[in-house]
Amino acid sequence: MAIKFSILKNSTKSRARLGILKTSHGEVETPALVPVATQGAVKALTNELAEQAGCQLLIANTFHLHLRPGEQVIEKMGGLHAFMNWPRPLMTDSGGFQVFSLGFGRDYGMGKILKEKEKSGRKIKAGQKPSFLKITDEGVHFSSPIDGKKLFIGPRESMAIQEALGADIIFAFDECTSPIADREYTVAALRRTNRWARICVQESSVKGQVLYGVVQGGKFADLRKESAKFIATQKFDGIGIGGEFGDDKATMTKMLRVVINELPDEKPRHLLGIGHPGDIERIVKEGIDTFDCTAPTHYARHGTAFTSNGRIDINKSAYLKDKRPIDPECGCFVCHDHSRSYLCHLFRSREMTAGTLLTFHNLFYFNKFVAGIRAKIRKGLL
Amino acid sequence: MAIKFSILKNSTKSRARLGILKTSHGEVETPALVPVATQGAVKALTNELAEQAGCQLLIANTFHLHLRPGEQVIEKMGGLHAFMNWPRPLMTDSGGFQVFSLGFGRDYGMGKILKEKEKSGRKIKAGQKPSFLKITDEGVHFSSPIDGKKLFIGPRESMAIQEALGADIIFAFDECTSPIADREYTVAALRRTNRWARICVQESSVKGQVLYGVVQGGKFADLRKESAKFIATQKFDGIGIGGEFGDDKATMTKMLRVVINELPDEKPRHLLGIGHPGDIERIVKEGIDTFDCTAPTHYARHGTAFTSNGRIDINKSAYLKDKRPIDPECGCFVCHDHSRSYLCHLFRSREMTAGTLLTFHNLFYFNKFVAGIRAKIRKGLL
Repeated sequence: MAIKFSILKNSTKSRARLGILKTSHGEVETPALVPVATQGAVKALTNELAEQAGCQLLIANTFHLHLRPGEQVIEKMGGLHAFMNWPRPLMTDSGGFQVFSLGFGRDYGMGKILKEKEKSGRKIKAGQKPSFLKITDEGVHFSSPIDGKKLFIGPRESMAIQEALGADIIFAFDECTSPIADREYTVAALRRTNRWARICVQESSVKGQVLYGVVQGGKFADLRKESAKFIATQKFDGIGIGGEFGDDKATMTKMLRVVINELPDEKPRHLLGIGHPGDIERIVKEGIDTFDCTAPTHYARHGTAFTSNGRIDINKSAYLKDKRPIDPECGCFVCHDHSRSYLCHLFRSREMTAGTLLTFHNLFYFNKFVAGIRAKIRKGLL
Repeated sequence: MAIKFSILKNSTKSRARLGILKTSHGEVETPALVPVATQGAVKALTNELAEQAGCQLLIANTFHLHLRPGEQVIEKMGGLHAFMNWPRPLMTDSGGFQVFSLGFGRDYGMGKILKEKEKSGRKIKAGQKPSFLKITDEGVHFSSPIDGKKLFIGPRESMAIQEALGADIIFAFDECTSPIADREYTVAALRRTNRWARICVQESSVKGQVLYGVVQGGKFADLRKESAKFIATQKFDGIGIGGEFGDDKATMTKMLRVVINELPDEKPRHLLGIGHPGDIERIVKEGIDTFDCTAPTHYARHGTAFTSNGRIDINKSAYLKDKRPIDPECGCFVCHDHSRSYLCHLFRSREMTAGTLLTFHNLFYFNKFVAGIRAKIRKGLL
């Protein structure tokens, strides 16, 4: 099926657009946050609560579900929608990000560790392919982090897994390069990603699923441009934009503009793995329609609440004496029913309920925040 | 306030009775399970879900809430009902069980460890008071397991804490003896418990709260009888029955009968810490009105589901291929919405959502099971 994406309004103030994405499991109002349901559940929430929190569309991780329980199990249970009992639209990613980050995560240490190493001036052998994986032109050989079993994922495998899972929107298999990959390595990785993109277009055949290609190119503007041009010309229903863009928000904005300049207007655009509250307006103004981000759920489990007045760390003992809701301006049941004091106590007592309540609030907050952005576009304010 | 407990029907087949317990936060149909909300939350559930699971009455732990966040915090927040946002009836225990089990738990190792030691034939110095605590006629000196701070709880302190917490039903401070306490030690502990009972009756004064005395006496039938006689004559609104009864179910039944023979019919009876599905009918037939038990919630978090066809361990990989609900005869939303396959996957993937879903099911199952027992009494079948 060709995707049905209708642009209701193009902003005159920015590149933002208001749209409707139609899938066989219902419609998504865009721009939209896509919360992450890694293993088929939004962490710490039931899917019933995720729906109540205003989630329109979830993204599950192909890599995780392939490892456990395996796509055959999910296919036998009627596909991912039936397995999760999630009646609304679903995406699965290509598996590329996880398999490669498994590699460079082991080599260099990801995220914080990596940044600390850079700061400390310790030499990192940048630009190499991840030593823990064997990457060929066909795909990636790796060992399961669960049981050490030898595994292989290439474009055909990614398509087969995603078709068995049966999400509404699936992604072409791509090589996501390390944040410290050099130009030479990024060129080679992009060549592979483009080759795999062609195979994915050929392989994708399941009715009811639509396929997004993925733009890569790391921190290199010319490679990003080349990648976007190539993906734009392939028979994809939508465009994913993946990988790292650079160190600061201004660079991210610039790079997004380089990419989106090359993309056709009529195809929906999904930004992979980015969507902190501080980023959302920025990326929407560049023309992003959907974006997935673990921020609302991940931070919630560690006690960080997003509010209309900024973030708060509810673990702090001062909140024990605070009768106010997490966010006095929020209309969610957690803010209606519970005080900061109670949430603070539950976090300090390490009660699982704490994570559930704050995850609900954060998702409700993010979804409402994005609904507010849609309203701004509608009213010509953004 | 004097408690309002109405017996609607006395069984002619057993000592079971059908009743209504009226509190200032609503009524409880008895016999009733009292799920445990140790730190002010049923573990892995929101209080909104606990209500949906049919919970009529919860019990929170005085010891835990005294240690963290402290009863002053909860009092300032308007009391435990407001703090938890639980509009229905609440109990708090006396703190006795936790402070003493902290003692003999450290000395001997509790539960499984204790039984293994007994089986292994290793000598356990039985009958001693817990060495980790200092017990006097005034109360118990102990160190906080959270920060090592020196603390003291006696009858006056227990009453003051429970009054600050503000539950509808509170318990007199009692010494809960170790499962291996000898007769001599149990006699001395009972003497203290009775002394403390008198003090609690004098101290208790808060309107809207009712006070239950606690029968102790360990495994010794004559001490149980003596304790029951004494507690029955004090100005308590209801009777708690605490401690260990012996090794098997037949002994428990016999001991309960010894105790209940001495109790006035008109006062409600609460059995502390007992209520596995295999025990419930047995204890109700002896005349127990309410009972608290961690079984439904504790087992749920470890993957054990209670069903109309017995227990199942949902962690077993065979369930990955099982499309049926946890309990095909159950009407809860988890059984309506989700398969054993999905629950099994979530447990094997260590998703928090797994514990939430199974806790809901188990509580719904237990509450319905007990509702079925009430129906049997009503119809003259039990």
